[in-house]
Amino acid sequence: MAHLPTQPYRGTRDFLPEEMSVRAQIFDTLFKAVETYGFQRYHGPTLEAAAIYEAKSGEELANQQLYRLTDKGGRELALRPEMTPTVARMIAGNAGKVQLPARWYSHVACFRYERPQRGRVREHFQLNVDLFGSDSFEAEVEIFEVVAAIMKALGAPRELYELRVNDRVLIEGALLNHVGVPEDKLIEASLVIDRWGKVDAEKRAATMTELGLSAEQQAKLGELLTMDLDAYREAAGPEHAERSSLAQILSGGMTTAPVVFDPGIVRGLAYYTGTVFEVFDVSPDNRRSIFGGGRYDNLVGLFSNQQISGIGFGMGDVTTWNFLETHDLLPKVDIAPEVYLWATDANYRGSLRELLGGLRDAGVRAIPALDATSMKAGLKQASRMGARFAVAFSEHEMADGRVLVKDLSSGEQHTPTLAEAAPALVAARG
Amino acid sequence: MAHLPTQPYRGTRDFLPEEMSVRAQIFDTLFKAVETYGFQRYHGPTLEAAAIYEAKSGEELANQQLYRLTDKGGRELALRPEMTPTVARMIAGNAGKVQLPARWYSHVACFRYERPQRGRVREHFQLNVDLFGSDSFEAEVEIFEVVAAIMKALGAPRELYELRVNDRVLIEGALLNHVGVPEDKLIEASLVIDRWGKVDAEKRAATMTELGLSAEQQAKLGELLTMDLDAYREAAGPEHAERSSLAQILSGGMTTAPVVFDPGIVRGLAYYTGTVFEVFDVSPDNRRSIFGGGRYDNLVGLFSNQQISGIGFGMGDVTTWNFLETHDLLPKVDIAPEVYLWATDANYRGSLRELLGGLRDAGVRAIPALDATSMKAGLKQASRMGARFAVAFSEHEMADGRVLVKDLSSGEQHTPTLAEAAPALVAARG
Repeated sequence: MAHLPTQPYRGTRDFLPEEMSVRAQIFDTLFKAVETYGFQRYHGPTLEAAAIYEAKSGEELANQQLYRLTDKGGRELALRPEMTPTVARMIAGNAGKVQLPARWYSHVACFRYERPQRGRVREHFQLNVDLFGSDSFEAEVEIFEVVAAIMKALGAPRELYELRVNDRVLIEGALLNHVGVPEDKLIEASLVIDRWGKVDAEKRAATMTELGLSAEQQAKLGELLTMDLDAYREAAGPEHAERSSLAQILSGGMTTAPVVFDPGIVRGLAYYTGTVFEVFDVSPDNRRSIFGGGRYDNLVGLFSNQQISGIGFGMGDVTTWNFLETHDLLPKVDIAPEVYLWATDANYRGSLRELLGGLRDAGVRAIPALDATSMKAGLKQASRMGARFAVAFSEHEMADGRVLVKDLSSGEQHTPTLAEAAPALVAARG
Repeated sequence: MAHLPTQPYRGTRDFLPEEMSVRAQIFDTLFKAVETYGFQRYHGPTLEAAAIYEAKSGEELANQQLYRLTDKGGRELALRPEMTPTVARMIAGNAGKVQLPARWYSHVACFRYERPQRGRVREHFQLNVDLFGSDSFEAEVEIFEVVAAIMKALGAPRELYELRVNDRVLIEGALLNHVGVPEDKLIEASLVIDRWGKVDAEKRAATMTELGLSAEQQAKLGELLTMDLDAYREAAGPEHAERSSLAQILSGGMTTAPVVFDPGIVRGLAYYTGTVFEVFDVSPDNRRSIFGGGRYDNLVGLFSNQQISGIGFGMGDVTTWNFLETHDLLPKVDIAPEVYLWATDANYRGSLRELLGGLRDAGVRAIPALDATSMKAGLKQASRMGARFAVAFSEHEMADGRVLVKDLSSGEQHTPTLAEAAPALVAARG
């Protein structure tokens, strides 16, 4: 019979234990950090009605990137490409039960049909952090504080990254009032800014011409990208500047996070209505966005009459891993057994099992050989596995009711009695 | 605009923080227990080639229960209904890198298109534990020891459950030699045993008649379900009894787990080739299978020429939850903040932020109000959230550079200075 392929489906990944140990440690660190900031874990389905992405996530995601399927009941479903529509649905559907403001986080797989490349895969794993039910700028502050806490917990000093912030209200004002973009072209014009650094000037100009922007307007749009916050607020006009709390958020002492205004930040998703931000690696080796998020006022409104504002971010495993790897901040692999035990003869099985059980009851990560094993083969296997201690049940020691314990890091060995071995090993591991 | 529905897709579940806290604690307990037994976490894709389930998982799963989709490249994919084919593919594809025997575990979502009912959902979450690369009966012992450790870690005393064991080798021998089932009807005949308690006698007889079994053969098949292990081995015949290590595994002193022979255990999946087992709740309130597994010799062989045997089990969240709930063993919800802080006036914001930051740096789960809040409203909110301590920044205390700290469990309150508050709260939480 021909064999089936061993490769995972294109754009998805197998995680062997070494790699999974690192990923699990990264996310455990994130969970602990966000829980300290009062965020509570929730979870939702992988499959959702496709309609929830069609409504607000934007054209590219809904039309090109969605994995769709129809179930036998004719329901049009999609594999979740992002978590925000799910959490908005959950908040809307549990209005009576959920206390607001609510601080929620999740860890989920997300799926996008994309051409695999650096930083882009078809299934990735994401930390989602959202705060619902507050229009106060303190919600922004809390989210930025969580970002700073996450980066600190990952070992990243604040010199390594920047939290670059803009506000959709100001972007809209600046495009309307400074550039003169018509109302119905606002989204497309903002996407020109979003892709500014990613496409060349000629292609960019062609896109703007298609949007009906004159050469003068195109120049004015370009000006926006060079402005500081004061100039940008002026460009947006008084009515939009008034509605934005960005100046307040960025004023001194509001947050300990390294926030800066960046007129180039827009974010691709269509549903953002206020603050938008991206966390950038600022080192020369990896100048790229690690993750981002923003405020969305109308997403819960898709599902109910309630007006509940949300603000949050999604942090994916791939860009986070690349960032940590670039700066040598990946956690160390931690999967080796502490103790490896073997018997040279099946007669010692009972004694081995007793010590093994005692070690495991004490929480020691201990593994036995599954067959009778020579002294030499046992030591070799213990060393290959990276065990800290090797414990042999062999005739020489067992004749006296003793075992051979070898510390593989120091090379020291001793021969405790069966009764002494477990407490000695528990004590020695420190 | 009409609203989109707030319900999750049929057969899937939303987990609000209370429920998710319990589920996360259950699985964290499981992870810790299996890691102590030397199992290392891995992970694989949600989407797999549909072919890997069609080959060996059995007709019902592959034809009726699979969520299928075709990607734009024409690849026929399925949402993983179970993890074993994925892990077998990974072991086959990483033969040079993976040391055998390998002890691996994972925690994944699995998808089956089923009619939702008690214990059955369309997306569930599963702990998978597998040991690869050993034909020794000690592999069975290790798996049974892990089961016992898991149940102990969940708080279940051994009187509460049984590990019911059979062996596909003996089942095959008994059907061939005792009942006289033809070779090509073995799978269907074993499924009759698998469903024995779930269908009525009349329907069962009809099925057996369809399989070509005479009344005498049907009676002999029924006899199998009443046999002890000695009789069953005899029924299987010497050649099959010789190939089975079940008698050795079940002999005294081999495992500390509460194992018993059960001729009714078959397991639905087609790929098992040896030991099969199910963990049963034996209390009168919840007499049902909690989870199960078995040994599979030929699954890695789907993907390569290597003969690598595996043995393991999958433990789903729904049946585990039901078991724990029945016996009042569910962990307590643990999501409340330890400290809730608020300021009655925005002028105290800076002081509040400073104390808040100090608490969070010390790992204290602390949440601030996001708007100026009266004393009464702050206390009410702290209490609603279940916070242990309430900390108010109000004019009365702030005039002296002090804050009001109230222990909401004892009702005691005091007014430390700003500098004293953080260490006092860290100390008081114990």
